[in-house]
Parts: sequence; structure tokens; C-alpha cells
Amino acid sequence: MTNILGEHFTLTSFGESHGKCVGVIVNGCPAGLRLKESEIQKELDKRKPGTSILVTQRKESDTVEIMSGVFEGYTTGAPICMIVQNKDADSSTYEKFKNIPRPGHSDYTGKKRFGGYNDWRGGGIFSARTTVSLVMAGAIAKKLLSTMLNIDIFAYTLEIGGIRAKIKSYEYAKKHRYKNLIRCPDSISSKKMEEKIKQVRSEGDSVGGIIECIATNVPPGLGSPNYNSLDGSLSAAMHTVPAVKGVEIGIGFNASRMKGSENNDSFILNNGKIITETNNSGGILGGITTGMPIVIRVGLKPASSISKEQNTLNLIKKTQTKLIVKGRHDPCVVPRAIPIIESATAVTLLDHVLKQSLIPTVINKRF
Amino acid sequence: MTNILGEHFTLTSFGESHGKCVGVIVNGCPAGLRLKESEIQKELDKRKPGTSILVTQRKESDTVEIMSGVFEGYTTGAPICMIVQNKDADSSTYEKFKNIPRPGHSDYTGKKRFGGYNDWRGGGIFSARTTVSLVMAGAIAKKLLSTMLNIDIFAYTLEIGGIRAKIKSYEYAKKHRYKNLIRCPDSISSKKMEEKIKQVRSEGDSVGGIIECIATNVPPGLGSPNYNSLDGSLSAAMHTVPAVKGVEIGIGFNASRMKGSENNDSFILNNGKIITETNNSGGILGGITTGMPIVIRVGLKPASSISKEQNTLNLIKKTQTKLIVKGRHDPCVVPRAIPIIESATAVTLLDHVLKQSLIPTVINKRF
Amino acid sequence: MTNILGEHFTLTSFGESHGKCVGVIVNGCPAGLRLKESEIQKELDKRKPGTSILVTQRKESDTVEIMSGVFEGYTTGAPICMIVQNKDADSSTYEKFKNIPRPGHSDYTGKKRFGGYNDWRGGGIFSARTTVSLVMAGAIAKKLLSTMLNIDIFAYTLEIGGIRAKIKSYEYAKKHRYKNLIRCPDSISSKKMEEKIKQVRSEGDSVGGIIECIATNVPPGLGSPNYNSLDGSLSAAMHTVPAVKGVEIGIGFNASRMKGSENNDSFILNNGKIITETNNSGGILGGITTGMPIVIRVGLKPASSISKEQNTLNLIKKTQTKLIVKGRHDPCVVPRAIPIIESATAVTLLDHVLKQSLIPTVINKRF
Amino acid sequence: MTNILGEHFTLTSFGESHGKCVGVIVNGCPAGLRLKESEIQKELDKRKPGTSILVTQRKESDTVEIMSGVFEGYTTGAPICMIVQNKDADSSTYEKFKNIPRPGHSDYTGKKRFGGYNDWRGGGIFSARTTVSLVMAGAIAKKLLSTMLNIDIFAYTLEIGGIRAKIKSYEYAKKHRYKNLIRCPDSISSKKMEEKIKQVRSEGDSVGGIIECIATNVPPGLGSPNYNSLDGSLSAAMHTVPAVKGVEIGIGFNASRMKGSENNDSFILNNGKIITETNNSGGILGGITTGMPIVIRVGLKPASSISKEQNTLNLIKKTQTKLIVKGRHDPCVVPRAIPIIESATAVTLLDHVLKQSLIPTVINKRF
Repeated sequence: MTNILGEHFTLTSFGESHGKCVGVIVNGCPAGLRLKESEIQKELDKRKPGTSILVTQRKESDTVEIMSGVFEGYTTGAPICMIVQNKDADSSTYEKFKNIPRPGHSDYTGKKRFGGYNDWRGGGIFSARTTVSLVMAGAIAKKLLSTMLNIDIFAYTLEIGGIRAKIKSYEYAKKHRYKNLIRCPDSISSKKMEEKIKQVRSEGDSVGGIIECIATNVPPGLGSPNYNSLDGSLSAAMHTVPAVKGVEIGIGFNASRMKGSENNDSFILNNGKIITETNNSGGILGGITTGMPIVIRVGLKPASSISKEQNTLNLIKKTQTKLIVKGRHDPCVVPRAIPIIESATAVTLLDHVLKQSLIPTVINKRF
Repeated sequence: MTNILGEHFTLTSFGESHGKCVGVIVNGCPAGLRLKESEIQKELDKRKPGTSILVTQRKESDTVEIMSGVFEGYTTGAPICMIVQNKDADSSTYEKFKNIPRPGHSDYTGKKRFGGYNDWRGGGIFSARTTVSLVMAGAIAKKLLSTMLNIDIFAYTLEIGGIRAKIKSYEYAKKHRYKNLIRCPDSISSKKMEEKIKQVRSEGDSVGGIIECIATNVPPGLGSPNYNSLDGSLSAAMHTVPAVKGVEIGIGFNASRMKGSENNDSFILNNGKIITETNNSGGILGGITTGMPIVIRVGLKPASSISKEQNTLNLIKKTQTKLIVKGRHDPCVVPRAIPIIESATAVTLLDHVLKQSLIPTVINKRF
Repeated sequence: MTNILGEHFTLTSFGESHGKCVGVIVNGCPAGLRLKESEIQKELDKRKPGTSILVTQRKESDTVEIMSGVFEGYTTGAPICMIVQNKDADSSTYEKFKNIPRPGHSDYTGKKRFGGYNDWRGGGIFSARTTVSLVMAGAIAKKLLSTMLNIDIFAYTLEIGGIRAKIKSYEYAKKHRYKNLIRCPDSISSKKMEEKIKQVRSEGDSVGGIIECIATNVPPGLGSPNYNSLDGSLSAAMHTVPAVKGVEIGIGFNASRMKGSENNDSFILNNGKIITETNNSGGILGGITTGMPIVIRVGLKPASSISKEQNTLNLIKKTQTKLIVKGRHDPCVVPRAIPIIESATAVTLLDHVLKQSLIPTVINKRF
Repeated sequence: MTNILGEHFTLTSFGESHGKCVGVIVNGCPAGLRLKESEIQKELDKRKPGTSILVTQRKESDTVEIMSGVFEGYTTGAPICMIVQNKDADSSTYEKFKNIPRPGHSDYTGKKRFGGYNDWRGGGIFSARTTVSLVMAGAIAKKLLSTMLNIDIFAYTLEIGGIRAKIKSYEYAKKHRYKNLIRCPDSISSKKMEEKIKQVRSEGDSVGGIIECIATNVPPGLGSPNYNSLDGSLSAAMHTVPAVKGVEIGIGFNASRMKGSENNDSFILNNGKIITETNNSGGILGGITTGMPIVIRVGLKPASSISKEQNTLNLIKKTQTKLIVKGRHDPCVVPRAIPIIESATAVTLLDHVLKQSLIPTVINKRF
């Protein structure tokens, strides 16, 4: 397991849910970027647990510490190590599941993969807690993309438990997405979604949903054909996020139900700028951006941890057994996943941006 | 553009639609595998153009030549170079589109990416013709997976133009998928799909569809967490195939509409073997296989080349114009994409298999 | 700067000389290896500063902390993060050199590379202190190679300031190399070397030397031809160590003065085992091991920090100036570099070992 | 064996000495570079066999064919595949060595590595013939470096059989190195070297030598610290060339015999430009260029193929035997290795140049 994401802006994550810390090394970040811990923290706070009744009650301050690569307020070009110490890990509830794999979780597959040596406490390396790494790196990527290229990345809840939001416009969505705990720009649907979450929560159950992520102002010509397609990179990055079971670009699967004449986006001039009339392609043709908004949708399964009784096995005794997963779980992971999906998008776009030298390796040289 | 797929079983593709050839270098193939050109050819023939009225009439024999890495009938462990020469390229119809980007195609994005230097003839490097590379490498991967681990990979048409097949069982699908030109195991739906294709063809239009790919007998424990997840690798590989706009694992987006108690697959014993009662996860939990069949679905957009009139631009004159794409096109790319999707699956699985040393670097050592 | 060493057993280092810490992430370590912090510490102690009058007087306990990847005494297969906190950093002496590059150091090149943003304190990321990372990873690599394949790696001082040791045999060298502060198995030469170091030290000067590193019991057939040659990997790893200016395999440059009939190592049988009569090749032919001891020699330049007056520039004023580098420096880095060179060898060999699946990804599976 | 050199300008070589061809895929070459086959050919001709009595008499025209990636005289940004077909392969002389490893060659190690499946004819993938790949890619790299950054790379014979040339100046060396068959700028020494080669040739023996390679006009700040050092990359690239047994940067091993005060290069101003007074470092400090000429020396062992009788084994019979290697061999590989070493330098420098975005991904954009 080499566990490295990206080729030019690379992430190497480490840490376990109930170990000392979770962290990431970012390699390839240009030197000369102004960077404060508070900027990373701001993004981390968006995925922090315990902030509302809709999410897990684990209490983690999730305080970032930059260990290297930043000096006198600027990135140095050296590897940036960022860690978040684990403070509120409670492994006691997990002890009894040590040999009783929780359905939907990676307990069984992790055991198989690592021959029984993996840290099983709180899911270990499989825990969604490891996405802290993605968010920390994403904070840097977002700042670079925004500062240098004016690229704007924002995600929001599109659907929860089958309730689908109406998105008036990306502009509107961007502005209103944080106006409720659901992080959904449609205030009417978001109320229904909230009810849905409360309901499944009261049943000891969980519910899944769909996140839509938009990147605007991406210049045309970003990405590559064949094995380095931007959509391939995005899709791979999305799948590093636990719970993601589907990824669509543009109209996605609906394209498969259309005719070419319906699906093809016509090229038109808009104030002298080349755009497409529609954006079924989601801003990507042949692995390369068209300049139109990049549109990605990810489907997240319902959180696997539920307090309803489930059938499973005792792996030692090789017998059927029942289990109830107590603990502090998210009835719906979708709202907290918003900054994670944005981060996965940001680090991927930045990786391609650096591959094509659209940002120099030093910003504002002072020597 | 480094254009390399995989880390252990790596593909480097090259060639353009109307250039001398399309080809691939396979690195990392174990030594000692019995390999004949005819085995590669058999797979190539499945994606060959001109074989029925449902597909493009370009006449290419698509004859593979192994240029290196195979000696006296066995792989040597050295890089395997395989090429297919282009014989029936007709660039004349493309000349006039040189500066008039075809909607849905990569003409505009390719020009932007490569500053106007890309080979535009027949789509150049963006042509689906380059998937010949994937199929050639896939033929080797399939043979290795099958011979060494008994892994079986098969894909079929699940949906075309909104007509969805009923899949009785994977076993049935595997057996019956090649019984019609649609490559769909449901004979009733396949007839409707065929009608649909003929209809859009007569309209000068095209239609999209969905392919489902299954891998059975995959041992549990294949894949990795975090940045090396098997689903991430699969999804990335799928997106290297032109026209793919969505990828799902297991029940995919439908998981986002379910409760945890519905979606979680219970672990049960089946003749002493650990399996899951349902397979909503599609055989992958936490990036790692469960041992259940891997289930992947990809949504393909309708072929962009249609002979209907479309709006576009003259990039030189910077004026709006109309265009009709004549030529020999696929009204529906889905049937020909079957071996391509299988290949993308095979090379990805093999990459993870080799990463975990499940196949030795030499098979049947004779020294 | 992606800063990743290896492809299968990969190191990602981070940290600066006077920052919070220096550290490394090791990816790809097999699960199930018994591993204690004390084993890493033992190796670190060999390169620790302040242990004799022959080396720098900086006082660092260099205490390793394993942050992830080890659970209940065993490696888990997850990324292993190890850090050493910096305790005795004294940046005051460096402040005045901020814009006055020290000859032989990377002050000027680092400034150029990172546009003036690099952490200049104590050499920052260029400091030999960053080799702590190599030693920590090397400790794991050595243990794996030794436990699983019985491979033994040991280095010693061959030459200092032109005084060359006589090496009776590798066996003798291995046994006696730590009998003096010079870490040279030749007790007579080591005394002369010690005198030499004391002399240059008293002059405020420094002196270079040559290290020889031997790996025994390496199975034949390790490595690859062309771009993945074992000697290429070794040579690249050696050059990650500051001060290394030359690398030789086997008899090295002396081979260029020989005839083929003198240089070629004849194959002979030795108790049924295939060996070579001589070992001019240093155990590597065509990038692949012969089974004979691997022999590497690296030439290290004298430490660049000297307290003699030197000519240099003030980069701000653009004027010529003089400088005297005070501080706590090594008059000769060779003895402390011994464990570093061993580590560079170990991580490289292990990388190739894992590439060829000679060690499984899980050791002693318990599930 | 992934067999990929470089990270940004990457080479994937393929082919065997007596197979159909030898070739290379170059990925990452910027689009818009004017490129003719004749430019590649010119470099190939410098390493072509059969051109003088000092080298092998194998008759190969070594004609390059560009198979992809170049369109209408310009690089397109797509992978560039270049092949040279083998015409004059004569495997008959090798048949009897199939199981009798030639001392100094990779027959035994190759057999071990690939379990007996490797193509043994003419050394197969281990043959120096595979360096054709390096030279073809090097031709492109040289042109890019020269055209875009005015970087000049030239190598020459420094030593053969212990006879060392006197190098008046790099400028002189560059101008006079091709004035004799030895490719040595010192006309007096080159005559002695020629005599030496003729003598060993008449004895059925071979002789080694040293090549020095210089790169001038390299901007300061190229390269990286730690695991991506420029010297590390150069050294690794050099070791991909068969016969190389030692690599030095700058004064190399001689630095290990000097004091810091002697070895350190003082910084001085030269017409307002920062240079160093001496260049012991060979233009690289801390893995990064100083702006002074890069100086690399490689030691090549004598060609292993000699017609003198040698001791070896019959691997099947497991008995001692004698062998005489007939065939068409180079009594000294040094002169033909000149363009190979230059190419290894060029592709490595270009890789770092692209990593740091010093050349854009499209040259002279025309869209």
C-alpha cells in the first residue's frame, strides 16, 4: 500500500481513528504561499464532529498542527506535514467487535487484507476520521486555486434519503448552502431532509445521500486524454472517501438515456468567449476541461454504524451472531462530507494544474 | 501527460486514430506466461469495427503484432510492446472540421490542451480507437487472472437508450451475453435495444447505454484503504474509456436512497465460507474485496458523431456555424465497449493482485 | 518536489533542522512485523550527535516516536509515521548567514530553488539532520531483510583524509567496525584517521572520507535490467545523503582501467552453489544480483561548515564578504554517516525485494 | 519491472537485441517542438555500430521510425513512440551459450531474475543495444534544453585503459572531441588510447574507460533536496547504461581526500553574476544546481565479450567448462557510449526542468 494521491501535488496520509493522530504530508506545494494554521482550521471545523444533533457526538477539537514546510507564514516548497491529534477516542465500545465484523464496515476486509494485524479500534485506518487528511490538504489546494487562478470549488447536499433538492443556480447554491445544518441550498427540501435524518436517528438507523460539487472558472484545456483524464483523477479521488459508491460527471448516467443530438453541447460565442450552450458534459470532454463549470456528483451510502440489531459472524467461533453497534455515530454523513468532497476536488484539480505548469513552483519570488 | 495506467502492471499507450498505429507497452507482466498473438487477437476481434450494421463501417483488421517481451511462446518479464497498424484511416472527412469543433468531441479541448498541435485526424489521440491498447493489455490480464486465480471477468449490455435488461443471474448473463449483436443476456430487451439503435441510426443520431461488469472468484482482501482503494482504481480506469460519464460500484447511487439497515450486507456462513447475504456493496468494502462478486456499472454517453446538423463555431473566423458529421460512425458504442470495460477491470484487478504478491513475478520457474 | 524514495517500500520525509521535528512516513511495510520503538532508537543512536569529540556537539536525544502504523507491537500494513522532535536547535548563529551563503552549503541553491522562502535555519531541509528519516526507515528495512531473508548489511569507514584502511575480510570488518570511534575495522589506520580528524578540528577545518557498505546473503536474481537496475536505485539512494559526491559498485572506477579478461568474474561451483571466483562486479551484473556480496563505496566530501575564514557574498548588498562559520559542527561526517549509508542500502534492497514479491505483504498471518 | 525513467519526461523502453526492434515511448514531451526524424537519426548515428575498426562490426543502419506523437513536423504532446528495427541480428553464435553464462554478462542474473524465460539471444533486454532508446529520447531532450534554455550537453572520452586525457577547457573539449575515433579532445592521448584499443583487440580482449559529461548554461536552482536530488537522478540514469560501475559529480571521490577549506567553492561576483571561484561541487550543491557547469564522470568496465578463453559453468550439467565468446564485439565501448551518456544527462535534466515548469507544456502556442 503506497497510499499516495496525486503526482505533482501529492498527499501521503497516515494515522488511525484511535491512534495518536491522523495526518498528511503534502508534497509539491509551491513555495511562497501565505499560509496560516487558522486557514486549515477553518476547513477542518466544517467536518468536525459533535457540532449538531445531526452528526456524531464524538468530541474532537480537531486542531491542526503544521509540523513542517511552512516558515515565517509562507510555504517553503518543502513537504508540509500536518497532524491532528486524537483526543476523544473511546475504544471500549469497539473491543467486543474485534472478531465480530460490523456489516457495511471494513472490519472483515481489513482483517483479510492485513492478516489480522490492522488496528481495529474505531475502524483504524478505514475510519472516515482519516479524511481529516484530505481536508487539510484541500484547504491548501483551494487557497492556491482560488488565489492564483480564481477557481472556485463548492459542494452541497443534493439529495438525502431520496429527497432531492432543487438547485436554482450554482451561484445561488454557493451562497445559500451553509444556511442550514444540511448544507443544502434548497431551504424547503433541506427541512424535509432534516426530518428524515431525525427520523432514522430515532430508529437507530442511518440514511445516505448525494453531494454535488461544482468548480467554476476552471480554464479550458486542463486535464489530459487517455490514462490521465481529469474525470478519471476526480473519480479516483472521490472513491478515497469512505461511503462513496457512485460518481457522475455532468449529467452522468442520464447521458446514457439520451440521443447524441440531445446530449452534445453546442459550442457558442458568449461575449467573444467560447462556451457551450448546455453543459451536459459537466465541463469535461476527452478528459479535458471545456471552461464550463465542472459538475461532479457522488452517491454516499448510509453510514454503516447503526444501533439496530444486525446479523453477522463471530470470526473466531465461526458462528452466526447478532450485533448492535452502540457508540457515537452519524445518522447521515452527507453534511460533514461536503468539505471532504470539495477537498478531493481541489487536490485533484491542483494536481493537474501543476502538471500543466499553470501555477509556478514559486509564487512571488523574493530571490 | 505521463499517460501510465497502474503501478505494478502498467500500461503506456501510444498512437493516434489516423497515424501509423495504436499500441501499448505492458510493464510488470510476470515471466513464464504462455502467450500467443491469437489470444490477444481474439479479444481485439470483439471490439473490431465493421462487424455488423450496428457499428461503424470502418474496415480495420486490427491485427496485433507483439514487438517485444514474448519469446518462444512465453512472456519473458520484459516490457511487452503490442501494436495494431491503422489501415483504413480516411482523414478526408475530417479536414474540414480542423477548425470547427464537433460538439461532444474533444476537438476543442484537445486544441486548447495542446496549443493547436494535436493530431486532429479522426480525433487523434482522443479517438476511441486508442482503446485497442486497453483491450490488448486486458487480454493478458484476463489470462493471468483466470489461469492463476480462477478470476472470471465478464461484462454485458445492461441498458441502451433507456431500455433496461433483466439480468436473471450473473451465471446466466455470462453464458448468454454474446448470443446477440447487442451483447445483452436478456433476449427480449436486446431486441428492443436493436430496434432503438436502428431507429437512431436512420435518424442520423446515436444513443447511449449502460454496461455492467462482473468479476467473480476474486479472493477477499484484495485492494487497499485510503488512496489505493480498489474502487478508486476501477473508477479511474473506467474513465480512461471515452464516453464514460458515470461509474457505480454495487448498487451505487441507489445506496444513497437507502437506510443503513437496508444497505448493510450481513455476514453469513455458506458451507463454512464467509459471504454476505446480499451484495449491495458490489464486493468492495473500504476499498477491499469481500470475496463476493465485484459489480461495476458504467454509463456511456451517446456517440458524439452524428450526421444531424449541429451548432458550433469556426474557431479561426470566430463565427457561429453549422456542421454535419459524415463518416463511418457507431450509432451506439455500447456493444463494442464490452471488451474494453472488461479489460479496464482486468488490468486494474491484476495491478492490485501484483501489488499484494498474489501472483509471483515468475510463473512455473524453469531455472 | 515529490520527495518520495522507492516504489514499493516508499519513504516520504519531512521536517527541517530547526523546525519542530524531522520525520518520515514509510508506506508499503508488510503487516505482521514485530517492531518496537527501541529497535528504531538503537539505529538512531548510532547517528546521534554529541557522542564523542570527533563529531558535532549539538545535544539531541533524537528520540523516536512512532505515530501510526504499529499496533500492539506489530506493523499493521498501514503507513508508519515516525518523528524525532528537535530539542537543541540554536538558530541564533545562523541569523547572520541568512543572506550570506556558506560555501559548500545549500544556502544559495536552496534560496534560488525556493525563491527565498526556504527555512534557512540550520540549513533547513538541506541539513544532514534530515537523514534521521532514512535511519528510522532503514531500521525497519534492515530488520525485515534480516529476519525474512537473512540479508546482512554493514558499512564501515574505509578512508578518511586520504588514509585508507586495510580490510582483512568482510567478516572481520563486520565484527570490528564499531571497536573505535572512527568505525573503521582497521585499528591501525583508524588511529591515524582519528589523529587526522583532531588535527583538522584544531585548525577549524574538516575532512572527507569514503564509506564501504556490504550486503551479504542477498539472493541471486534481485533487481532489474534497464531503468530499474539495482545499482541505479542504490546510487540514487546514496545521493540523497548530503556530502556524497561519488558512488562505486564493486571495483568501480578501477574497472575502467582493466582489461575484460581481468575484470570478468568467472563462474564457479562452490559446494554445489554457483558463485563467481572474484567479485569485481560487486555482486551486480546487468542491474541484478549475482548472489555474491554487494559492494558499494561512497565518497563523502569534507563537512562544509568550517570555522576558517572563507570568501563569499552578501546576496542583498551584492558585495564580496568574508565569513567564519561558528557553531557545533562535525569535523568529519564519515563515522556518523555509517548508519545512514547502511539505511540507504537497506531501504533500496527492500524496495526491490518487495517488487519481486520475495517477502509477502503479511508476515505470519493470523487471520 | 516497471521500467520507467523519469517522472515528468518519462521513458518506457522495450525491445531486445535480437527481437523485432528496440524502441522507446517518451511521455511528457511538450507540444509544439519542431522535430524531424533526421534529428533523431543524427544522434543515433553517433552510437551506430560498425563505423570503425575500434567498434563492433555488427551492421545495423539503426534507422529511427517515429510511430506516434509527431504531426506535421511538430510534437503534439501525445506519447512519442520511436522504434529501430533490428536487421543484422545473428543469434547463431549465442545458441551455444544458452546455458553457459558468459562472465561479466547478465546471462546468469537474467536467467535467475526471469526464471529462465528471458530472451537470451544477444543478451536480449540486457544488451547495450537497448541504449538506442536512451539516445532517441535524448535527442529530443537535448533539442528542448538547447532551444528553450540554451543548455548545452557534451561528453567526451577522458580515460581509456588508464590513459588519461588532459582537458584544456570545456570549451576546447566540446569543439575537438569528435576530431578522432576515440572522441577524446586530447589528440595526443587519443592516439595512445587508439593504440591501446588496437592492442587489446588483437589479444581478443577489451578495455574500459572513463567518460566525462558537461552541461553548461544550466540555470541555478534546478533540482531538489532530499529524495529528488539532481545528482541522485543523474546517478540513477547513468547506471541504466550497461557497463557503468561508478559515477562522480564534480571532483567526486577526490573530495573525500580534501579539507573543507580546500573543497568549498567560494562564491564570487563575475560581471554581476553569482558564480563560484572553483567548481569542485560539479555545479550541484544540496541536489540543486549552482549555475556552474555540471560535471559528471562515469567509469565503464571493459566490454565483457572477449574472445579469450574463460572459465564458466554449464548450468544444465552443473559442471565447470571453458568458453570463448566469438562474434562481433566492441573492444572498447567508451567511444560509442558518448552519445548515450549525453542522452542520460539530457533526459534527466529535462525531467527536472519540467518538474519545475521551466519549459511550458506547449511551446509557441498557436491556439
